[in-house]
Amino acid sequence: MGFKGTLRPGLVQLRVLDFDKTLDFYKNVLGLDEVCRTSDGRVCLKAYDEFDHHSLTLRLADTAGLDYVAFKVGCPDELEKMKEAVQAFGYAVDTVQAETDQPGFGKRYGFTISTGHRFEIYSDVKLSEKTPMIQNPDIWTEPPRGMKAQRLDHFLLYGPNIAEAERFCQEVLGMFVPEVCNTPDGNRLAAWITSSNKPHDLAFVEYPHAGKIHHLGFYLEDWHDVGNAADWIAINNLKLDIGPTRHAITRGHSIYFWEPSGNRIEVYSGGYTAYPDNPQRTWDSAQLGRGLFYYSGEVIPSFLEVVT
Amino acid sequence: MGFKGTLRPGLVQLRVLDFDKTLDFYKNVLGLDEVCRTSDGRVCLKAYDEFDHHSLTLRLADTAGLDYVAFKVGCPDELEKMKEAVQAFGYAVDTVQAETDQPGFGKRYGFTISTGHRFEIYSDVKLSEKTPMIQNPDIWTEPPRGMKAQRLDHFLLYGPNIAEAERFCQEVLGMFVPEVCNTPDGNRLAAWITSSNKPHDLAFVEYPHAGKIHHLGFYLEDWHDVGNAADWIAINNLKLDIGPTRHAITRGHSIYFWEPSGNRIEVYSGGYTAYPDNPQRTWDSAQLGRGLFYYSGEVIPSFLEVVT
Amino acid sequence: MGFKGTLRPGLVQLRVLDFDKTLDFYKNVLGLDEVCRTSDGRVCLKAYDEFDHHSLTLRLADTAGLDYVAFKVGCPDELEKMKEAVQAFGYAVDTVQAETDQPGFGKRYGFTISTGHRFEIYSDVKLSEKTPMIQNPDIWTEPPRGMKAQRLDHFLLYGPNIAEAERFCQEVLGMFVPEVCNTPDGNRLAAWITSSNKPHDLAFVEYPHAGKIHHLGFYLEDWHDVGNAADWIAINNLKLDIGPTRHAITRGHSIYFWEPSGNRIEVYSGGYTAYPDNPQRTWDSAQLGRGLFYYSGEVIPSFLEVVT
Amino acid sequence: MGFKGTLRPGLVQLRVLDFDKTLDFYKNVLGLDEVCRTSDGRVCLKAYDEFDHHSLTLRLADTAGLDYVAFKVGCPDELEKMKEAVQAFGYAVDTVQAETDQPGFGKRYGFTISTGHRFEIYSDVKLSEKTPMIQNPDIWTEPPRGMKAQRLDHFLLYGPNIAEAERFCQEVLGMFVPEVCNTPDGNRLAAWITSSNKPHDLAFVEYPHAGKIHHLGFYLEDWHDVGNAADWIAINNLKLDIGPTRHAITRGHSIYFWEPSGNRIEVYSGGYTAYPDNPQRTWDSAQLGRGLFYYSGEVIPSFLEVVT
Repeated sequence: MGFKGTLRPGLVQLRVLDFDKTLDFYKNVLGLDEVCRTSDGRVCLKAYDEFDHHSLTLRLADTAGLDYVAFKVGCPDELEKMKEAVQAFGYAVDTVQAETDQPGFGKRYGFTISTGHRFEIYSDVKLSEKTPMIQNPDIWTEPPRGMKAQRLDHFLLYGPNIAEAERFCQEVLGMFVPEVCNTPDGNRLAAWITSSNKPHDLAFVEYPHAGKIHHLGFYLEDWHDVGNAADWIAINNLKLDIGPTRHAITRGHSIYFWEPSGNRIEVYSGGYTAYPDNPQRTWDSAQLGRGLFYYSGEVIPSFLEVVT
Repeated sequence: MGFKGTLRPGLVQLRVLDFDKTLDFYKNVLGLDEVCRTSDGRVCLKAYDEFDHHSLTLRLADTAGLDYVAFKVGCPDELEKMKEAVQAFGYAVDTVQAETDQPGFGKRYGFTISTGHRFEIYSDVKLSEKTPMIQNPDIWTEPPRGMKAQRLDHFLLYGPNIAEAERFCQEVLGMFVPEVCNTPDGNRLAAWITSSNKPHDLAFVEYPHAGKIHHLGFYLEDWHDVGNAADWIAINNLKLDIGPTRHAITRGHSIYFWEPSGNRIEVYSGGYTAYPDNPQRTWDSAQLGRGLFYYSGEVIPSFLEVVT
Repeated sequence: MGFKGTLRPGLVQLRVLDFDKTLDFYKNVLGLDEVCRTSDGRVCLKAYDEFDHHSLTLRLADTAGLDYVAFKVGCPDELEKMKEAVQAFGYAVDTVQAETDQPGFGKRYGFTISTGHRFEIYSDVKLSEKTPMIQNPDIWTEPPRGMKAQRLDHFLLYGPNIAEAERFCQEVLGMFVPEVCNTPDGNRLAAWITSSNKPHDLAFVEYPHAGKIHHLGFYLEDWHDVGNAADWIAINNLKLDIGPTRHAITRGHSIYFWEPSGNRIEVYSGGYTAYPDNPQRTWDSAQLGRGLFYYSGEVIPSFLEVVT
Repeated sequence: MGFKGTLRPGLVQLRVLDFDKTLDFYKNVLGLDEVCRTSDGRVCLKAYDEFDHHSLTLRLADTAGLDYVAFKVGCPDELEKMKEAVQAFGYAVDTVQAETDQPGFGKRYGFTISTGHRFEIYSDVKLSEKTPMIQNPDIWTEPPRGMKAQRLDHFLLYGPNIAEAERFCQEVLGMFVPEVCNTPDGNRLAAWITSSNKPHDLAFVEYPHAGKIHHLGFYLEDWHDVGNAADWIAINNLKLDIGPTRHAITRGHSIYFWEPSGNRIEVYSGGYTAYPDNPQRTWDSAQLGRGLFYYSGEVIPSFLEVVT
């Protein structure tokens, strides 16, 4: 049995500056579980409500930021068809075979899109030993910790030529675009893109420097847990960027803050149920402040400037 | 452009016993908007966060219950292919051409499945004149009323031979089955089925009498709004069935109650994000009480017996 | 400096049947902290948001139920005046001097009221070593556990002649009575009584057997945490009595369940801000079901019958 | 029967710049009910969960700001005793007899405190014709509107010599001071003061200009309703000051914004249960940002500078 197209963003590899404080954040504040470490010292983590082996890999480096994001595809046949579609779109594809590179994962195909980000696609990954229960399941098996992140949700990427990236996500990855923002001269400033009923699996903002990540988003149960996350930000003296607030775009509730290595994290809940046949929502760039931060109506400077 | 397979349950026609009290409930307590009336006196309604023309039609009758449910399919080509698949599955298909039958809707194909329910499929429906905003959208255009139902969510059908119905939903409608319940001898007692990331678009319970509906479910924002709905139940002296509670199955928060004509309504929020590649959750029938009503752990008799 | 009258119910001693399962519940599910054990083996606990030494003492016994409740009075002078008022009301008063009896507590005066319950009053108790922070305080110092009970809130006592008990609380303890329920012949069936802006510090229901406790109530932050408490009930296979629900009486959100020794516990949040100059709310006994369980409108039999 | 001391802040008279937009805000956005108009054109309003005749009077003027605040005292005897205590404290007292001045209110005594604010005290006020229900009460009689403000909660006053004002509130009004903030040289910078179990009925910040009001606070049910209020701020294009956020001081959840006339309004929920015997919480002025805005940890300039 196989499923069509892209299922979801399933794996992100981030660069972090030290493991002691940063891992403590991801495990005890955000609430992820450490799954394993790779032979070259990277740390693999997952959220308590995810089934697959892991969804986040942290690599020690001199600068924070994103190594790559990887999307899970419905089945091996779809993966091969999608690889060919990537090449047909004009991107060179490499193959990562090594299970040691990402334990539990099978073959991944990688390529660089117009915005300068490395994307990967894969269809084969082992289940975690610590999945949610499947036989007469309880709602969780261990009490969720800290912010109680349920799963990896989405990411916002900054880079040049997002129009091509958006087209790629639609034509090759089979996604749709529930919401966009245009400049007065009609150019794309931002796009929110999904392969599912989630209002976004990823988003792009047009930006002169390639390969930047604005934030990585994790899903919380509801607005109450957004407030709880804010409590944990305060008690742990994490640097808040903005929130708790609501986006008019996606309609989700949100907080942005920086983890100890300087990667911006969003914890997010809610949002509308996106359907591909619904009209696309469109924002004028003059209204983007209201679209992003519905309550203040203003984009704070750090939001547009600080990326890693 | 066309989308694959089934998008969602998009239209339900219910029988009601009188319009005065019942419409007052749907409009001022549940919070739907009246869209129009048909020439034969039926009333068409929609929830504030739905785009399509309407999602619920009420027909005056001597008994409460379900006339039919209709699923929106991605595009006309998909509709024709699905019609042929229905016939190939062995069900006779009729065609409803009249726009007067359901204003705003194009051609619908109808057929009766193993459980004795009439299903319909369609791809063509006009947008409502009162869709959610799409240009620099606010989160709503008029303050949501009463229980603040956001959209039609799902329904639970009772009837014989649900094993075939489940197979039909997968093989013909292209859905998947995140969760099932089996009797000790391994027969299907219940199945929760979806065409999306919602944990269920519909569900079946095995039952000797054909064509029965247990409840129609509408979506609320969160647990807080489930509590608010309970307040409206109390203040309006509606008859509560059970709740507020949580399902272990789908993990959603819920209340069941009867509207004035005797149709059982659920208002529901949350639930996990369903993916087709995740393992299927399985319940033993001895644990069904806990699966349905996680807090009490017991099925109340009315839940299994009273259907319309 | 001294404060007038009764401040709050500050200490309860309960009988439990075993310590292993029961303490595990109070500490890891309800979320209390163990403070100390007495020389005769009782266990003293407090909630994370309480300042005084402890608020709950558990004593091993053959039957579950209440030994006594104790009210904190504003200052030693008030205590002596109140002791005299108790005697003037006609109740014999004994004195408990031993700090060993309740570690951290000074002198307590005890007496039996008309309903057969032992009440105590005291003014002197040490602060806990683990109070909430007071210098540039965080909102908590350790993450609240389980149901996250913030503090002892109230108790409901069953016994004969509650009319006298109600009068005693007003005339001697200086409390007021925001809400009452009367039988058709005008007799008191129940009363909700407070010394503060909380809608109740204690309540009475008329009952033929003396000295019974219906439940002990702990305070949660809000309706969301009532839902969280219900999750913990389910996951720990505690026996639910009723809820999550709302009381029209006090207007609070609530769940009732039994701890492992068979004492009924309520976790409660919200409720109106009670003022002594506001009119008293009055319930007809025929409406008590709606008053107690606003959503179902019915008193479940176990609620009126099962007391310890 | 009479109650001791001060019950609560019961009446505020504010200056507003126009009635059309401002009244629309107070009635349809904040959710107050208009009670009556005075012969000189002022408008009297109350929140849906208040019993007394009205709690807010709006007066057309050239500048926004506060005319006076008035505290309800337990009974006429207490009022006379308190009047004498005011005079003994050294403040000149005037008497407002006219029911026409504040319809429904009896005699009020007025005086100016050290910070330059006019305070009034009264014991006699009629019940509203639209109180909350008292016979078998529902939780509300009409659906709460907009932000669903339940009642007047508190106000923050800016002016000189708050040390004296704080002492006055304790010694004459019989209040206590759950929380304070001091400068490094030990002077009072701010104090939070209450006559009840609410964490504050009023607060002062030391400020060179007399008689200023920072904000008027209304109570909401919980954090969810703080989020709902933020939605109404956005949809009505009200100017946000800060929030949704949490105070470490009082521990309540909050938003600040400006109503159309330029008075700053806070909608607030939660907060700890304050008891006079609990230790006073103390803040260093260097930590005030964290105390006020727990999530960002920083005082925004507008918060300390903009008062009316």
